[in-house]
Amino acid sequence: MPAAAPIDPAPLDGATLTERLKELAAFSDVPGELTRLTLSPAHKRAAAQVSFWMRQAGMSQVHMDATGTITGRYAADRENAKTLLVGSHIDTVRNAGIYDGNLGVVVAIAAVEELSRQGRRLPFAIEVAAFADEEGVRFLSTLTSSKAMAGLFDPSALDDMDAQGISRAEALKSFGAPVETLAECRRDPATTLGYVEVHIEQGPVLEAAGAPLGIVTGIAGASRGHVRVRGQAGHSGTLPMPMRHDALAAAAEMILAVEARGRADADTLVTTVGTLLVGGGAVNVVPGEVQFSLDIRSLSDALRARAIADIEEAARAIAAHRGVQVTFDMRHHVPAALCHGPLKDRMAEVVEDLGVPLVRLPSGAGHDAMVFRDVLPMAMLFVRSENGSHNPREYASPADIGLAARALYAFFLKTAEATTDA
Amino acid sequence: MPAAAPIDPAPLDGATLTERLKELAAFSDVPGELTRLTLSPAHKRAAAQVSFWMRQAGMSQVHMDATGTITGRYAADRENAKTLLVGSHIDTVRNAGIYDGNLGVVVAIAAVEELSRQGRRLPFAIEVAAFADEEGVRFLSTLTSSKAMAGLFDPSALDDMDAQGISRAEALKSFGAPVETLAECRRDPATTLGYVEVHIEQGPVLEAAGAPLGIVTGIAGASRGHVRVRGQAGHSGTLPMPMRHDALAAAAEMILAVEARGRADADTLVTTVGTLLVGGGAVNVVPGEVQFSLDIRSLSDALRARAIADIEEAARAIAAHRGVQVTFDMRHHVPAALCHGPLKDRMAEVVEDLGVPLVRLPSGAGHDAMVFRDVLPMAMLFVRSENGSHNPREYASPADIGLAARALYAFFLKTAEATTDA
Repeated sequence: MPAAAPIDPAPLDGATLTERLKELAAFSDVPGELTRLTLSPAHKRAAAQVSFWMRQAGMSQVHMDATGTITGRYAADRENAKTLLVGSHIDTVRNAGIYDGNLGVVVAIAAVEELSRQGRRLPFAIEVAAFADEEGVRFLSTLTSSKAMAGLFDPSALDDMDAQGISRAEALKSFGAPVETLAECRRDPATTLGYVEVHIEQGPVLEAAGAPLGIVTGIAGASRGHVRVRGQAGHSGTLPMPMRHDALAAAAEMILAVEARGRADADTLVTTVGTLLVGGGAVNVVPGEVQFSLDIRSLSDALRARAIADIEEAARAIAAHRGVQVTFDMRHHVPAALCHGPLKDRMAEVVEDLGVPLVRLPSGAGHDAMVFRDVLPMAMLFVRSENGSHNPREYASPADIGLAARALYAFFLKTAEATTDA
Repeated sequence: MPAAAPIDPAPLDGATLTERLKELAAFSDVPGELTRLTLSPAHKRAAAQVSFWMRQAGMSQVHMDATGTITGRYAADRENAKTLLVGSHIDTVRNAGIYDGNLGVVVAIAAVEELSRQGRRLPFAIEVAAFADEEGVRFLSTLTSSKAMAGLFDPSALDDMDAQGISRAEALKSFGAPVETLAECRRDPATTLGYVEVHIEQGPVLEAAGAPLGIVTGIAGASRGHVRVRGQAGHSGTLPMPMRHDALAAAAEMILAVEARGRADADTLVTTVGTLLVGGGAVNVVPGEVQFSLDIRSLSDALRARAIADIEEAARAIAAHRGVQVTFDMRHHVPAALCHGPLKDRMAEVVEDLGVPLVRLPSGAGHDAMVFRDVLPMAMLFVRSENGSHNPREYASPADIGLAARALYAFFLKTAEATTDA
């Protein structure tokens, strides 16, 4: 392979990339904020801008697939080469920040642009994907565009309706997506090297560690559901303490048990009660019924299952002791998606080469990357973000974004070495 | 005084009294249930029925006062005699039971009817009051009709508006109450022996004790307010347990502290968290803000104040330990109203004479009786009730109601003895 040319700051410059993110943020369906739900008019304009940047970066084949994903292909230095997929999404939540998803797309285009600027081809093609459907705000189904690429698209998702009664199929048509080519979305694992995604962390771990970048170990599996506690309602003045079966006091004890279980495996488990409703609640009524949510996540599916069992056992003991009933309805379970060892290690190497601290961390949030779990080798690079995500105050610094672009570029080169060696 | 005649079951018969309660329950503003908010058309019809029964019971002066109270006076056996007030209310909550309030009025009329049937006059007059405004559902102010009798009516209550924008003054006029005679409502403590009220317990204590009747030691004082906990919202997947400042987990710990404080003085204190709201709550968000209610009641005002201070101290310690903020807004404080020793003891004597178990208990709920706290000697007799109160399932048995009527009748005779002796 050719000797590495010195990296020109231009395409990989963090300030330049931040400018692009701001340009992209102007495509919003709601003036004064960034709201770009999947397949909306603003999404269509953003997709056009991304297509333009892809072509400008030297990608010869830029097109929209059947699910609204914009893909740009940067050819290999040889015939019959494999392809490395690099992606993230450009749909957003309502009143979003400008980094979530968009940063990964902008950085991927920049890394390809640097190859192109240097006139460099690698022994594999690179395909950048700007996915269309990650946030799951508009339709019930989500991750449909990355699932299509993994060969996991469920056609029933085409019939999903948004709040205005528009089906996903209709929305795709308005968007300009060639729905009839759905079968062509799938990438063949035999000719695909893997999937890589750069994304803001959406949590405070890198910030607390003083690290601009993080190697993702995997995407946590998640279980969600509801717990219902039934006690006996009564008058707050006339029902003596020893005769009470207070559903809220019981729920309070259970909430602390949920928290304690999470804390007991704090490095690999998070347990959250995010909502609580008191049925028929009033200041002067001893609560007779309470419902609260449960959200349990871990990179270890076994630990997640064990934690749920432990929480159920603790809650049943509390209920028995207090003479109340408790029922669990844990309906949604998504398994963990572990990052691929060699790809992850390669990402760690390039981060170390940049001279910044090496932090490995799981992703507690879901990402397009997770759909490739059983299909392709997958890796993710996190960028430090302030103020979480899904709000206008989320922030990644230009310096950190520049580091992420340089890391991805270096990852391409390292992958080229590995591919040539093989 | 004349020798006690044998008690004829007719007016004091529990089955007869239950029939009257059912007749009264037919006066409802909502078909198919009992809803008789203060000063409503149904209340007006119920007041006419009560007036009829009062006249039938031998009360010569029956009239409606300025606040809508129906009073019936049974004259004494002598000139310049004092008056014993006996009352309860005939307004109800929405979808009420038939016993709350109404039972005390029906029983009082029956006890006078028995005197009348026996041609018996006592050395004091008896005035039965069917108060108009105890439940506090329609207007913000409440207990106005008993307050007027105690000389504590606040004229600003006339300007109170209901949900339809009708003022209390207008409602009183439609009801037929002579509002211009407000000044005449007040009873002179110098010529009034005291106030006595029979009421269902509204709690499970008598039922648990197997006692049909209970001697009320006093009406608990009450403090109400809200507690607000501010933590830090975050993503349930990406915020590690050790970095959380979970407002709901903190609130859960505080709720258990509230419960524990009540349990520590379980014979004289009740502490309740009846409502809880998670601000911006979602399954996948670590709660950043929670508000919950606090309701603290005790017959001891000092203990109530101490309990509030203890709860605040515990909550502040929990907040400090968890790195969250807590603020208390305890706005409503009503002092306890102790029952009058001699009247209470006399009530206990007549209950013992009936051969039923003697149970003394505080009232955790408010009653018209409480407004006489600093004005008149006051006593209350509770009747065992099933299924609490303020719901259609509340129930007092005909046998227990008959016992209550006989107890009140005996109380009249005992009071006559005491008055003659004095």
